[in-house]
Amino acid sequence: MTGWLVVAGLGPGDAGMVTPEVTAALAGASDVLGYIPYVARVAPRAGLTLHPSDNREELDRAHHALDLAAAGGRVVIVSSGDPGVFAMASALFEALETRPDLAAGLDIRILPGITAMLAAAAAAGAPLGHDFCCINLSDNLKPQALIERRLRLAAEADLAMAFYNPRSKSRPEGFARALAILTEVCGRDRLITFARAVSTPEQRIATVTLGEATPEMADMRTVVIVGNSQTRRVGTWVYTPRSVA
Amino acid sequence: MTGWLVVAGLGPGDAGMVTPEVTAALAGASDVLGYIPYVARVAPRAGLTLHPSDNREELDRAHHALDLAAAGGRVVIVSSGDPGVFAMASALFEALETRPDLAAGLDIRILPGITAMLAAAAAAGAPLGHDFCCINLSDNLKPQALIERRLRLAAEADLAMAFYNPRSKSRPEGFARALAILTEVCGRDRLITFARAVSTPEQRIATVTLGEATPEMADMRTVVIVGNSQTRRVGTWVYTPRSVA
Repeated sequence: MTGWLVVAGLGPGDAGMVTPEVTAALAGASDVLGYIPYVARVAPRAGLTLHPSDNREELDRAHHALDLAAAGGRVVIVSSGDPGVFAMASALFEALETRPDLAAGLDIRILPGITAMLAAAAAAGAPLGHDFCCINLSDNLKPQALIERRLRLAAEADLAMAFYNPRSKSRPEGFARALAILTEVCGRDRLITFARAVSTPEQRIATVTLGEATPEMADMRTVVIVGNSQTRRVGTWVYTPRSVA
Repeated sequence: MTGWLVVAGLGPGDAGMVTPEVTAALAGASDVLGYIPYVARVAPRAGLTLHPSDNREELDRAHHALDLAAAGGRVVIVSSGDPGVFAMASALFEALETRPDLAAGLDIRILPGITAMLAAAAAAGAPLGHDFCCINLSDNLKPQALIERRLRLAAEADLAMAFYNPRSKSRPEGFARALAILTEVCGRDRLITFARAVSTPEQRIATVTLGEATPEMADMRTVVIVGNSQTRRVGTWVYTPRSVA
Protein backbone atom coordinates (compact mmCIF):
# COMPACT_ATOMS: atom_id res chain seq x y z
CA MET A 1 0.00 0.00 0.00
CA THR A 2 1.79 3.15 -1.21
CA GLY A 3 -1.09 5.61 -1.08
CA TRP A 4 -1.26 8.50 1.32
CA LEU A 5 -3.87 10.87 2.67
CA VAL A 6 -3.25 14.50 3.57
CA VAL A 7 -5.77 16.92 5.06
CA ALA A 8 -4.51 20.36 4.08
CA GLY A 9 -5.48 23.89 5.07
CA LEU A 10 -5.64 26.39 2.20
CA GLY A 11 -5.77 29.44 4.46
CA PRO A 12 -8.51 32.06 4.26
CA GLY A 13 -8.26 32.86 0.55
CA ASP A 14 -5.09 34.72 -0.45
CA ALA A 15 -2.57 32.54 -2.30
CA GLY A 16 0.15 34.33 -0.30
CA MET A 17 -1.10 32.54 2.82
CA VAL A 18 -0.90 28.97 1.44
CA THR A 19 2.08 27.25 3.04
CA PRO A 20 4.75 25.64 0.85
CA GLU A 21 4.10 22.20 2.35
CA VAL A 22 0.45 22.40 1.31
CA THR A 23 1.44 23.54 -2.18
CA ALA A 24 3.85 20.59 -2.39
CA ALA A 25 1.20 18.11 -1.26
CA LEU A 26 -1.19 19.39 -3.92
CA ALA A 27 1.56 19.13 -6.57
CA GLY A 28 2.04 15.45 -5.72
CA ALA A 29 -1.64 14.52 -5.44
CA SER A 30 -3.60 12.18 -7.68
CA ASP A 31 -6.94 13.16 -6.10
CA VAL A 32 -8.21 16.30 -4.36
CA LEU A 33 -11.48 16.24 -2.41
CA GLY A 34 -13.35 19.00 -0.64
CA TYR A 35 -16.24 21.40 -0.49
CA ILE A 36 -16.93 22.87 -3.94
CA PRO A 37 -15.52 26.41 -3.40
CA TYR A 38 -12.35 25.06 -1.79
CA VAL A 39 -11.63 22.53 -4.56
CA ALA A 40 -12.18 25.42 -7.01
CA ARG A 41 -9.01 26.99 -5.55
CA VAL A 42 -6.90 24.05 -6.81
CA ALA A 43 -5.64 24.40 -10.40
CA PRO A 44 -6.58 21.46 -12.64
CA ARG A 45 -3.71 19.56 -14.26
CA ALA A 46 -3.08 16.27 -16.05
CA GLY A 47 -3.01 13.33 -13.64
CA LEU A 48 -5.10 15.09 -11.00
CA THR A 49 -8.74 14.22 -10.40
CA LEU A 50 -10.79 16.85 -8.58
CA HIS A 51 -13.70 15.61 -6.44
CA PRO A 52 -15.75 18.62 -5.34
CA SER A 53 -18.70 17.82 -3.07
CA ASP A 54 -21.35 19.73 -1.23
CA ASN A 55 -21.39 21.12 2.27
CA ARG A 56 -22.61 18.79 5.05
CA GLU A 57 -21.18 15.78 3.18
CA GLU A 58 -18.05 15.73 5.30
CA LEU A 59 -18.27 12.11 6.48
CA ASP A 60 -18.98 10.73 3.01
CA ARG A 61 -16.05 12.76 1.69
CA ALA A 62 -13.79 11.39 4.41
CA HIS A 63 -14.75 7.78 3.61
CA HIS A 64 -14.23 8.42 -0.10
CA ALA A 65 -10.76 9.82 0.62
CA LEU A 66 -9.89 6.81 2.80
CA ASP A 67 -11.00 4.44 0.03
CA LEU A 68 -8.93 6.26 -2.58
CA ALA A 69 -5.81 6.30 -0.40
CA ALA A 70 -6.25 2.64 0.60
CA ALA A 71 -6.32 1.82 -3.12
CA GLY A 72 -2.95 3.55 -3.60
CA GLY A 73 -4.09 7.11 -4.36
CA ARG A 74 -2.15 10.19 -3.31
CA VAL A 75 -5.08 12.00 -1.77
CA VAL A 76 -5.52 15.55 -0.44
CA ILE A 77 -8.65 16.70 1.33
CA VAL A 78 -8.67 20.50 1.24
CA SER A 79 -10.18 22.72 3.91
CA SER A 80 -10.39 26.46 4.02
CA GLY A 81 -8.30 28.00 6.81
CA ASP A 82 -6.88 25.33 9.09
CA PRO A 83 -8.20 21.75 8.74
CA GLY A 84 -8.19 21.26 12.52
CA VAL A 85 -10.48 24.22 13.31
CA PHE A 86 -14.12 23.34 12.60
CA ALA A 87 -13.07 21.56 9.44
CA MET A 88 -12.20 18.26 7.79
CA ALA A 89 -9.54 16.84 10.13
CA SER A 90 -12.06 15.85 12.81
CA ALA A 91 -14.42 14.48 10.15
CA LEU A 92 -11.62 12.28 8.82
CA PHE A 93 -10.89 10.82 12.26
CA GLU A 94 -14.61 10.25 12.84
CA ALA A 95 -14.62 8.21 9.63
CA LEU A 96 -11.37 6.45 10.51
CA GLU A 97 -12.84 5.38 13.85
CA THR A 98 -15.24 3.11 11.96
CA ARG A 99 -12.46 1.65 9.76
CA PRO A 100 -10.07 -0.13 12.16
CA ASP A 101 -8.59 -1.94 9.13
CA LEU A 102 -7.18 1.38 7.94
CA ALA A 103 -6.35 3.13 11.22
CA ALA A 104 -3.02 1.36 11.63
CA GLY A 105 -1.57 1.14 8.15
CA LEU A 106 -2.48 4.26 6.27
CA ASP A 107 -0.04 7.17 5.84
CA ILE A 108 -2.07 10.14 7.10
CA ARG A 109 -0.83 13.68 7.67
CA ILE A 110 -2.65 16.86 8.73
CA LEU A 111 -1.09 20.04 7.32
CA PRO A 112 -2.05 23.19 9.21
CA GLY A 113 -3.16 26.39 7.54
CA ILE A 114 -3.80 30.02 8.43
CA THR A 115 -7.17 29.85 10.15
CA ALA A 116 -9.69 32.64 9.55
CA MET A 117 -9.61 34.08 13.07
CA LEU A 118 -5.85 34.66 12.95
CA ALA A 119 -6.02 36.25 9.50
CA ALA A 120 -8.91 38.39 10.76
CA ALA A 121 -7.02 39.36 13.90
CA ALA A 122 -3.97 40.33 11.82
CA ALA A 123 -6.10 42.46 9.49
CA ALA A 124 -7.68 44.23 12.48
CA GLY A 125 -4.52 44.56 14.58
CA ALA A 126 -4.00 42.16 17.49
CA PRO A 127 -7.32 41.59 19.27
CA LEU A 128 -6.32 38.02 20.19
CA GLY A 129 -3.00 39.05 21.74
CA HIS A 130 -3.95 37.74 25.18
CA ASP A 131 -5.87 34.60 26.28
CA PHE A 132 -8.82 33.87 24.01
CA CYS A 133 -11.34 31.26 22.94
CA CYS A 134 -12.69 30.10 19.63
CA ILE A 135 -16.35 29.10 19.41
CA ASN A 136 -18.44 27.90 16.49
CA LEU A 137 -21.83 29.60 16.81
CA SER A 138 -23.56 27.19 14.43
CA ASP A 139 -26.15 25.09 16.21
CA ASN A 140 -25.95 22.35 13.55
CA LEU A 141 -23.58 20.31 15.68
CA LYS A 142 -24.49 21.26 19.25
CA PRO A 143 -27.43 22.57 21.25
CA GLN A 144 -28.00 26.33 21.35
CA ALA A 145 -28.10 26.12 25.18
CA LEU A 146 -24.51 24.85 25.22
CA ILE A 147 -23.38 27.71 22.97
CA GLU A 148 -24.97 30.23 25.33
CA ARG A 149 -23.44 28.57 28.40
CA ARG A 150 -19.99 28.74 26.79
CA LEU A 151 -20.43 32.41 25.90
CA ARG A 152 -21.30 33.29 29.48
CA LEU A 153 -18.41 31.34 30.98
CA ALA A 154 -15.91 32.71 28.44
CA ALA A 155 -17.09 36.25 29.15
CA GLU A 156 -16.81 35.67 32.90
CA ALA A 157 -13.26 34.41 32.32
CA ASP A 158 -12.55 37.69 30.47
CA LEU A 159 -11.30 35.79 27.45
CA ALA A 160 -11.27 37.49 24.07
CA MET A 161 -13.45 35.45 21.70
CA ALA A 162 -13.44 34.50 18.05
CA PHE A 163 -16.68 33.23 16.52
CA TYR A 164 -16.93 31.07 13.41
CA ASN A 165 -20.21 30.66 11.51
CA PRO A 166 -21.83 33.47 13.49
CA ARG A 167 -25.04 33.75 11.53
CA SER A 168 -26.87 31.75 8.91
CA LYS A 169 -29.91 32.73 6.90
CA SER A 170 -31.88 29.83 8.34
CA ARG A 171 -31.30 30.71 12.01
CA PRO A 172 -30.33 34.38 12.37
CA GLU A 173 -31.80 34.56 15.88
CA GLY A 174 -28.87 32.65 17.39
CA PHE A 175 -26.41 35.47 16.76
CA ALA A 176 -28.86 38.06 18.11
CA ARG A 177 -29.03 35.99 21.32
CA ALA A 178 -25.22 35.81 21.44
CA LEU A 179 -24.91 39.60 21.16
CA ALA A 180 -27.51 40.06 23.90
CA ILE A 181 -25.66 37.71 26.27
CA LEU A 182 -22.31 39.33 25.57
CA THR A 183 -23.72 42.83 26.10
CA GLU A 184 -25.25 41.69 29.38
CA VAL A 185 -21.99 40.22 30.71
CA CYS A 186 -19.37 42.48 29.05
CA GLY A 187 -21.22 45.79 28.82
CA ARG A 188 -22.07 48.04 25.87
CA ASP A 189 -18.57 49.51 25.52
CA ARG A 190 -16.77 46.22 24.76
CA LEU A 191 -15.18 46.24 21.29
CA ILE A 192 -16.35 43.79 18.64
CA THR A 193 -14.77 43.33 15.21
CA PHE A 194 -16.59 42.01 12.15
CA ALA A 195 -14.11 40.63 9.63
CA ARG A 196 -15.73 39.59 6.36
CA ALA A 197 -14.06 37.64 3.52
CA VAL A 198 -10.65 38.09 5.10
CA SER A 199 -7.67 38.19 2.72
CA THR A 200 -9.92 38.24 -0.38
CA PRO A 201 -10.64 41.28 -2.59
CA GLU A 202 -13.97 41.65 -0.74
CA GLN A 203 -12.31 41.93 2.68
CA ARG A 204 -14.11 44.33 5.01
CA ILE A 205 -13.09 44.96 8.63
CA ALA A 206 -15.33 46.94 10.98
CA THR A 207 -14.84 47.46 14.72
CA VAL A 208 -17.70 48.84 16.82
CA THR A 209 -18.87 48.54 20.41
CA LEU A 210 -21.32 45.87 21.54
CA GLY A 211 -23.81 48.71 22.05
CA GLU A 212 -23.48 49.59 18.37
CA ALA A 213 -23.39 46.02 17.02
CA THR A 214 -26.38 44.55 15.19
CA PRO A 215 -26.87 40.95 14.03
CA GLU A 216 -26.94 42.06 10.37
CA MET A 217 -23.25 43.01 10.61
CA ALA A 218 -22.35 39.30 10.33
CA ASP A 219 -23.01 36.61 7.77
CA MET A 220 -21.51 33.16 7.19
CA ARG A 221 -18.40 34.67 5.57
CA THR A 222 -17.72 36.77 8.67
CA VAL A 223 -15.42 35.98 11.56
CA VAL A 224 -16.42 37.92 14.65
CA ILE A 225 -13.89 38.84 17.34
CA VAL A 226 -14.92 40.20 20.73
CA GLY A 227 -12.20 41.80 22.81
CA ASN A 228 -11.55 41.27 26.49
CA SER A 229 -11.96 44.03 29.09
CA GLN A 230 -8.56 45.53 28.14
CA THR A 231 -9.01 45.56 24.35
CA ARG A 232 -8.70 49.02 22.84
CA ARG A 233 -8.10 51.05 19.72
CA VAL A 234 -4.91 52.68 18.56
CA GLY A 235 -5.37 54.65 15.36
CA THR A 236 -7.41 52.47 13.01
CA TRP A 237 -6.23 49.30 14.77
CA VAL A 238 -7.70 47.29 17.62
CA TYR A 239 -5.52 45.32 19.99
CA THR A 240 -5.47 43.46 23.28
CA PRO A 241 -2.50 44.20 25.54
CA ARG A 242 -0.26 41.29 26.50
CA SER A 243 -0.57 41.94 30.21
CA VAL A 244 -3.31 42.38 32.77
CA ALA A 245 -2.55 45.12 35.29
CA MET B 1 7.90 58.74 4.31
CA THR B 2 8.22 55.57 2.24
CA GLY B 3 9.15 53.14 4.99
CA TRP B 4 6.95 50.31 6.13
CA LEU B 5 6.67 48.01 9.11
CA VAL B 6 5.54 44.40 8.96
CA VAL B 7 5.10 42.05 11.90
CA ALA B 8 5.47 38.57 10.44
CA GLY B 9 4.86 35.08 11.79
CA LEU B 10 7.54 32.53 10.91
CA GLY B 11 5.46 29.53 11.95
CA PRO B 12 6.65 26.95 14.46
CA GLY B 13 9.97 26.06 12.83
CA ASP B 14 9.65 24.13 9.57
CA ALA B 15 10.42 26.23 6.47
CA GLY B 16 7.51 24.45 4.77
CA MET B 17 5.13 26.33 7.08
CA VAL B 18 6.39 29.85 6.30
CA THR B 19 3.79 31.56 4.11
CA PRO B 20 4.81 33.10 0.75
CA GLU B 21 3.73 36.58 1.87
CA VAL B 22 6.08 36.39 4.86
CA THR B 23 8.90 35.16 2.62
CA ALA B 24 8.22 38.08 0.24
CA ALA B 25 8.24 40.63 3.08
CA LEU B 26 11.59 39.31 4.29
CA ALA B 27 12.98 39.47 0.73
CA GLY B 28 12.06 43.17 0.54
CA ALA B 29 13.24 44.16 4.01
CA SER B 30 16.09 46.48 4.93
CA ASP B 31 15.90 45.57 8.63
CA VAL B 32 14.75 42.49 10.54
CA LEU B 33 14.21 42.65 14.30
CA GLY B 34 13.23 39.96 16.76
CA TYR B 35 14.16 37.60 19.54
CA ILE B 36 17.59 36.07 18.89
CA PRO B 37 16.51 32.51 17.87
CA TYR B 38 13.82 33.86 15.53
CA VAL B 39 16.15 36.31 13.76
CA ALA B 40 18.56 33.39 13.39
CA ARG B 41 15.99 31.78 11.06
CA VAL B 42 16.38 34.66 8.56
CA ALA B 43 19.21 34.21 6.04
CA PRO B 44 21.70 37.12 5.96
CA ARG B 45 22.13 38.95 2.66
CA ALA B 46 23.55 42.20 1.32
CA GLY B 47 21.35 45.18 2.13
CA LEU B 48 19.70 43.51 5.10
CA THR B 49 20.55 44.45 8.68
CA LEU B 50 19.62 41.89 11.32
CA HIS B 51 18.78 43.22 14.80
CA PRO B 52 18.49 40.26 17.18
CA SER B 53 17.54 41.15 20.74
CA ASP B 54 16.84 39.33 23.96
CA ASN B 55 13.59 38.03 25.35
CA ARG B 56 11.54 40.45 27.50
CA GLU B 57 12.76 43.38 25.40
CA GLU B 58 9.61 43.43 23.30
CA LEU B 59 8.65 47.07 23.89
CA ASP B 60 12.16 48.39 23.19
CA ARG B 61 12.22 46.28 20.03
CA ALA B 62 8.86 47.68 18.93
CA HIS B 63 10.03 51.29 19.44
CA HIS B 64 13.24 50.55 17.56
CA ALA B 65 11.22 49.13 14.65
CA LEU B 66 8.92 52.16 14.63
CA ASP B 67 11.95 54.49 14.52
CA LEU B 68 13.53 52.57 11.65
CA ALA B 69 10.32 52.54 9.61
CA ALA B 70 9.62 56.23 10.32
CA ALA B 71 13.11 56.97 8.95
CA GLY B 72 12.23 55.17 5.70
CA GLY B 73 13.30 51.63 6.52
CA ARG B 74 11.54 48.53 5.20
CA VAL B 75 11.22 46.80 8.54
CA VAL B 76 10.11 43.30 9.53
CA ILE B 77 9.65 42.22 13.14
CA VAL B 78 9.69 38.43 13.20
CA SER B 79 7.76 36.30 15.66
CA SER B 80 7.69 32.56 15.98
CA GLY B 81 4.29 31.08 15.16
CA ASP B 82 1.67 33.77 14.66
CA PRO B 83 2.56 37.35 15.66
CA GLY B 84 -0.93 37.92 17.09
CA VAL B 85 -0.82 35.01 19.57
CA PHE B 86 1.25 35.94 22.65
CA ALA B 87 3.79 37.63 20.43
CA MET B 88 5.03 40.86 18.91
CA ALA B 89 1.87 42.30 17.32
CA SER B 90 0.37 43.39 20.66
CA ALA B 91 3.75 44.73 21.79
CA LEU B 92 3.94 46.84 18.63
CA PHE B 93 0.52 48.38 19.26
CA GLU B 94 1.41 49.02 22.89
CA ALA B 95 4.42 50.99 21.64
CA LEU B 96 2.38 52.71 18.93
CA GLU B 97 -0.13 53.90 21.53
CA THR B 98 2.57 56.16 22.98
CA ARG B 99 3.56 57.51 19.53
CA PRO B 100 0.46 59.33 18.21
CA ASP B 101 2.73 61.04 15.64
CA LEU B 102 3.23 57.66 13.97
CA ALA B 103 -0.15 55.99 14.51
CA ALA B 104 -1.78 57.72 11.54
CA GLY B 105 0.88 57.86 8.86
CA LEU B 106 2.93 54.69 9.05
CA ASP B 107 2.32 51.73 6.71
CA ILE B 108 1.89 48.81 9.13
CA ARG B 109 0.83 45.27 8.27
CA ILE B 110 0.51 42.16 10.43
CA LEU B 111 1.16 38.92 8.53
CA PRO B 112 -0.27 35.83 10.21
CA GLY B 113 1.66 32.60 10.66
CA ILE B 114 1.03 29.00 11.68
CA THR B 115 0.74 29.26 15.44
CA ALA B 116 2.21 26.51 17.60
CA MET B 117 -1.09 25.15 18.92
CA LEU B 118 -2.42 24.50 15.41
CA ALA B 119 0.79 22.83 14.27
CA ALA B 120 0.72 20.76 17.47
CA ALA B 121 -2.93 19.84 16.95
CA ALA B 122 -2.19 18.77 13.36
CA ALA B 123 0.74 16.62 14.48
CA ALA B 124 -1.43 14.94 17.13
CA GLY B 125 -4.61 14.61 15.04
CA ALA B 126 -7.44 17.08 15.60
CA PRO B 127 -7.80 17.72 19.34
CA LEU B 128 -8.98 21.31 18.70
CA GLY B 129 -11.69 20.26 16.24
CA HIS B 130 -14.49 21.67 18.42
CA ASP B 131 -14.72 24.86 20.54
CA PHE B 132 -11.48 25.58 22.37
CA CYS B 133 -9.49 28.21 24.24
CA CYS B 134 -5.90 29.31 24.19
CA ILE B 135 -4.27 30.34 27.47
CA ASN B 136 -0.74 31.51 28.23
CA LEU B 137 0.23 29.88 31.53
CA SER B 138 3.13 32.25 32.16
CA ASP B 139 2.52 34.44 35.18
CA ASN B 140 4.93 37.11 33.91
CA LEU B 141 2.08 39.17 32.49
CA LYS B 142 -0.88 38.31 34.71
CA PRO B 143 -1.61 37.08 38.23
CA GLN B 144 -1.55 33.34 38.89
CA ALA B 145 -5.03 33.64 40.44
CA LEU B 146 -6.44 34.86 37.10
CA ILE B 147 -4.83 31.93 35.28
CA GLU B 148 -6.44 29.50 37.69
CA ARG B 149 -9.83 31.20 37.42
CA ARG B 150 -9.68 30.94 33.63
CA LEU B 151 -8.73 27.25 33.78
CA ARG B 152 -11.73 26.47 35.99
CA LEU B 153 -14.20 28.41 33.83
CA ALA B 154 -12.83 26.95 30.59
CA ALA B 155 -13.09 23.44 32.03
CA GLU B 156 -16.64 24.11 33.20
CA ALA B 157 -17.46 25.30 29.68
CA ASP B 158 -16.08 21.96 28.37
CA LEU B 159 -13.72 23.77 26.03
CA ALA B 160 -10.64 22.00 24.74
CA MET B 161 -7.60 24.02 25.79
CA ALA B 162 -4.21 24.88 24.37
CA PHE B 163 -1.54 26.18 26.73
CA TYR B 164 1.47 28.25 25.73
CA ASN B 165 4.50 28.68 28.01
CA PRO B 166 3.24 25.95 30.34
CA ARG B 167 6.27 25.66 32.55
CA SER B 168 9.43 27.64 33.18
CA LYS B 169 12.44 26.66 35.26
CA SER B 170 11.90 29.61 37.58
CA ARG B 171 8.28 28.80 38.48
CA PRO B 172 7.53 25.12 37.79
CA GLU B 173 4.84 25.05 40.49
CA GLY B 174 2.34 26.94 38.30
CA PHE B 175 1.93 24.07 35.86
CA ALA B 176 1.60 21.57 38.69
CA ARG B 177 -1.26 23.71 40.03
CA ALA B 178 -2.84 23.82 36.57
CA LEU B 179 -2.74 20.03 36.27
CA ALA B 180 -4.29 19.67 39.73
CA ILE B 181 -7.16 22.06 38.87
CA LEU B 182 -7.82 20.36 35.54
CA THR B 183 -7.82 16.90 37.14
CA GLU B 184 -10.24 18.13 39.79
CA VAL B 185 -12.71 19.59 37.25
CA CYS B 186 -12.22 17.24 34.26
CA GLY B 187 -11.35 13.96 35.96
CA ARG B 188 -8.33 11.66 35.67
CA ASP B 189 -9.36 10.13 32.32
CA ARG B 190 -9.30 13.37 30.28
CA LEU B 191 -6.72 13.24 27.48
CA ILE B 192 -3.78 15.65 27.49
CA THR B 193 -1.21 16.02 24.71
CA PHE B 194 2.32 17.29 25.18
CA ALA B 195 3.73 18.56 21.89
CA ARG B 196 7.38 19.55 22.10
CA ALA B 197 9.38 21.42 19.43
CA VAL B 198 6.61 20.96 16.89
CA SER B 199 7.67 20.76 13.23
CA THR B 200 11.38 20.67 14.13
CA PRO B 201 13.66 17.60 14.01
CA GLU B 202 13.23 17.32 17.80
CA GLN B 203 9.42 17.08 17.60
CA ARG B 204 7.92 14.77 20.20
CA ILE B 205 4.18 14.20 20.66
CA ALA B 206 2.85 12.32 23.68
CA THR B 207 -0.79 11.86 24.67
CA VAL B 208 -1.66 10.58 28.14
CA THR B 209 -4.51 10.98 30.61
CA LEU B 210 -4.57 13.72 33.25
CA GLY B 211 -4.15 10.94 35.81
CA GLU B 212 -0.88 9.94 34.10
CA ALA B 213 0.39 13.49 33.43
CA THR B 214 3.25 14.96 35.43
CA PRO B 215 4.56 18.55 35.37
CA GLU B 216 7.93 17.37 34.05
CA MET B 217 6.30 16.36 30.76
CA ALA B 218 6.27 20.04 29.73
CA ASP B 219 8.92 22.68 29.30
CA MET B 220 8.94 26.11 27.62
CA ARG B 221 9.22 24.51 24.16
CA THR B 222 6.05 22.47 24.76
CA VAL B 223 2.51 23.29 23.73
CA VAL B 224 0.01 21.43 25.90
CA ILE B 225 -3.45 20.53 24.60
CA VAL B 226 -6.20 19.26 26.89
CA GLY B 227 -9.19 17.68 25.20
CA ASN B 228 -12.83 18.27 26.01
CA SER B 229 -15.13 15.58 27.44
CA GLN B 230 -15.57 14.02 23.97
CA THR B 231 -11.89 13.90 22.94
CA ARG B 232 -10.68 10.39 22.16
CA ARG B 233 -8.06 8.28 20.46
CA VAL B 234 -8.24 6.58 17.10
CA GLY B 235 -5.13 4.55 16.35
CA THR B 236 -2.14 6.71 17.28
CA TRP B 237 -4.17 9.90 16.80
CA VAL B 238 -6.22 12.00 19.20
CA TYR B 239 -9.21 14.00 18.04
CA THR B 240 -12.25 15.91 19.23
CA PRO B 241 -15.49 15.19 17.36
CA ARG B 242 -17.19 18.09 15.60
CA SER B 243 -20.50 17.54 17.32
CA VAL B 244 -21.80 17.19 20.85
CA ALA B 245 -24.45 14.50 21.17
